[in-house]
Amino acid sequence: MRPKIVIVGAGFGGMATVNALKHVDADVVLVDRTNHHLFQPLLYQVATAALSPADIATASRVLLRRNRNATVMMADAAGVDTTAQILQLADGRTLHYDYLVLATGAAYSFFGHDEWAGHAKVLKSLDDALSIRDKLLRAFERAEQCDDPAEVARLLTFVVVGGGPTGVELAGTIAELARTTLARDFRHIDPQSARIVLCEAGKHVLGAFPGELPDYASGALRSLGVEVRLGEAVTLVDADGIVLGPERINAAVVLWCAGTQARPAANWLGAEAARNGAVKVAEDCSVPGHGNIFAIGDVASFDPGTGRPLPGLAPVAKQQGKYVGRLIANRIAGRKTPLPFRYRDLGSMAVIGRSRAIADFGRFQLKGFLAWLAWSMVHLMLLVDFRSRLMVYMNWSWAWFTYGRGARLLTGHDDHGTAVKDEASSEIEKP
Amino acid sequence: MRPKIVIVGAGFGGMATVNALKHVDADVVLVDRTNHHLFQPLLYQVATAALSPADIATASRVLLRRNRNATVMMADAAGVDTTAQILQLADGRTLHYDYLVLATGAAYSFFGHDEWAGHAKVLKSLDDALSIRDKLLRAFERAEQCDDPAEVARLLTFVVVGGGPTGVELAGTIAELARTTLARDFRHIDPQSARIVLCEAGKHVLGAFPGELPDYASGALRSLGVEVRLGEAVTLVDADGIVLGPERINAAVVLWCAGTQARPAANWLGAEAARNGAVKVAEDCSVPGHGNIFAIGDVASFDPGTGRPLPGLAPVAKQQGKYVGRLIANRIAGRKTPLPFRYRDLGSMAVIGRSRAIADFGRFQLKGFLAWLAWSMVHLMLLVDFRSRLMVYMNWSWAWFTYGRGARLLTGHDDHGTAVKDEASSEIEKP
Repeated sequence: MRPKIVIVGAGFGGMATVNALKHVDADVVLVDRTNHHLFQPLLYQVATAALSPADIATASRVLLRRNRNATVMMADAAGVDTTAQILQLADGRTLHYDYLVLATGAAYSFFGHDEWAGHAKVLKSLDDALSIRDKLLRAFERAEQCDDPAEVARLLTFVVVGGGPTGVELAGTIAELARTTLARDFRHIDPQSARIVLCEAGKHVLGAFPGELPDYASGALRSLGVEVRLGEAVTLVDADGIVLGPERINAAVVLWCAGTQARPAANWLGAEAARNGAVKVAEDCSVPGHGNIFAIGDVASFDPGTGRPLPGLAPVAKQQGKYVGRLIANRIAGRKTPLPFRYRDLGSMAVIGRSRAIADFGRFQLKGFLAWLAWSMVHLMLLVDFRSRLMVYMNWSWAWFTYGRGARLLTGHDDHGTAVKDEASSEIEKP
Repeated sequence: MRPKIVIVGAGFGGMATVNALKHVDADVVLVDRTNHHLFQPLLYQVATAALSPADIATASRVLLRRNRNATVMMADAAGVDTTAQILQLADGRTLHYDYLVLATGAAYSFFGHDEWAGHAKVLKSLDDALSIRDKLLRAFERAEQCDDPAEVARLLTFVVVGGGPTGVELAGTIAELARTTLARDFRHIDPQSARIVLCEAGKHVLGAFPGELPDYASGALRSLGVEVRLGEAVTLVDADGIVLGPERINAAVVLWCAGTQARPAANWLGAEAARNGAVKVAEDCSVPGHGNIFAIGDVASFDPGTGRPLPGLAPVAKQQGKYVGRLIANRIAGRKTPLPFRYRDLGSMAVIGRSRAIADFGRFQLKGFLAWLAWSMVHLMLLVDFRSRLMVYMNWSWAWFTYGRGARLLTGHDDHGTAVKDEASSEIEKP
């Protein structure tokens, strides 16, 4: 009987695992709630109408068409019975495994304020991105039809909480959207008057970068018209906006890019978890006490011996996936994998806006146009298939020359649409 | 005081009107429920995962950026007070007009069986297209996980009701999706075994075309694997499928492309309506008794003197929009428009699948590859902006060489998603 390897999550980690197992004589099952692999690093561009979902997401079945030992299963994992070796699905079905790889990622956490979740948007899935795009574009449409100056100001205020890469990317891109793309398209409002506030409780944005790079990033954001607020904590998020330190900021859109929380795999296993809920894994990425269960990527907390767990980055997930895939292949073949997992840091980058980025390659740093060029090229190359590369390249070239964005579409198919419509009608003064 | 011209509907007719008024000293207001102009002829390609919404839809504001006299208003029209000369909006607001152009189009009608609407999908908006895409792709995903052969057969049966251009396009494209694109992507089901049924109560599909073209179309559909059922009426649509003549056909997806019904403009005006609800208009496209109100496109019934009203085609709407725009411009300038509207028929085309189409240019007809080439080129040229043209061209080229479709994405943001999930869980046998 061929061993059965179940991998949960079709992100960077899960996909790398499946691919490392391509030529192994085993049944590989990839379980994911969605039908696609998503290129998360460019998700903020879908949220800001620069790219379409299809540009950065590809059906998992298409990617695994040539992996003849792999089956794709669209289902929601809900628990693990480690004794019976079964993965439990949300709809009550179960899946037997001989090896289990958990690559379920992380979600955003509201630091115990779950009531804020109803008023702030997070960016993790395609749905999230489309919902943010909807809220952003709708705010401008509503402002255009509104006669109350205070309400117009609120509608044109956008708050981003969290000064990590996603927060910086969103704040910078929303500023560009308002200042260039939309600038000439309205008759009653001036989109350039939009206020974009980036709140970071720490002393720097992009604080994980060394040297002068964080200060460069703050400066670049400010030159784009972003109000960068450092060292103050957000103490409230409600339907009207936020409270930042002593100040209330009324805003139509609040985007939450602060603290992440691993998905609940540690609970499933009864395993030890790090502060953010991630499963503490051994040096071979296995879950202590369960030699045939592995956790990789954002759902895992891997300590490379420094006392500081590896960061939640795509390359970590990818390298761990490849490592675990090979380890399982070796074990099935009766071979040992002699070495523990070791993360090879190829550097990190963050983009702030058109022609502005920072990059840290350890030995040297880049900022500005060169870093942006490097960022663009690396991200184009990292896109998994040629079609996505081509489409993203075309869209970027178009946007570069025209300042336009092709995906400025409001579609009304989320429940949210109706709610906003009702809200709008009560807010607009009737003649 | 500048005259105020209100145009309702950002389709082909409304856009043509606004553009014909570009240099007129007037306030032009374009009212539409969405924020975009949609290239309807390619909407079926969004529904079948070949194109992304952004490829065929462009924000109305972008298209009208250089129309300095035009304002875009995203709002839902709900009625007209012809005495006070105001357009009533669904949210209670009102808009004064000096000239009113109604270009609100048509919807599908269920021949009095409104209860069928819950079980059959129509294709008019981007939301409709995304919802159909979702239902199609999800049916294959559910079949892949299903152990009951009868249920698998139901999940892989797709019924299209109505043998007009949209029905033919959908049936042909779904057949291609199943036979080529998805063919190698599943492990438990064979997508090539999918059953696609096209039901037409008349004697021919594409019955508006002359000579042997309808028969060619039926043959081309059959060679693609579509079951073409002619001369039988659908007598029931329910959650399990349809009843066609004496036969019950269980199907996961029923697409409704039969009879259209004009949107309710005639009621608003108390005007005389044709059988399909369209406003009967005078020879200058004005509504009899209301010299300053015009109806164009699918919402209007224009009799060119033959006793047969003009068909519901994009070129009719466009030409009428241009005519009415000029007529209003003339009237504002104090000039008369001497001639009644005359439709210039440039021919019509319908596409059946890859390399298969029919075209009628009056003097001569085309079918097969040449017609398909003509169809492709004409539709590329008709796309309103260069960006869309480029993106559609790239996507088509990609699909041509690879048989792939880029937009095979399930996103869960419509209310429908949850329902399907629950349904699926109860259908699948538990191990």
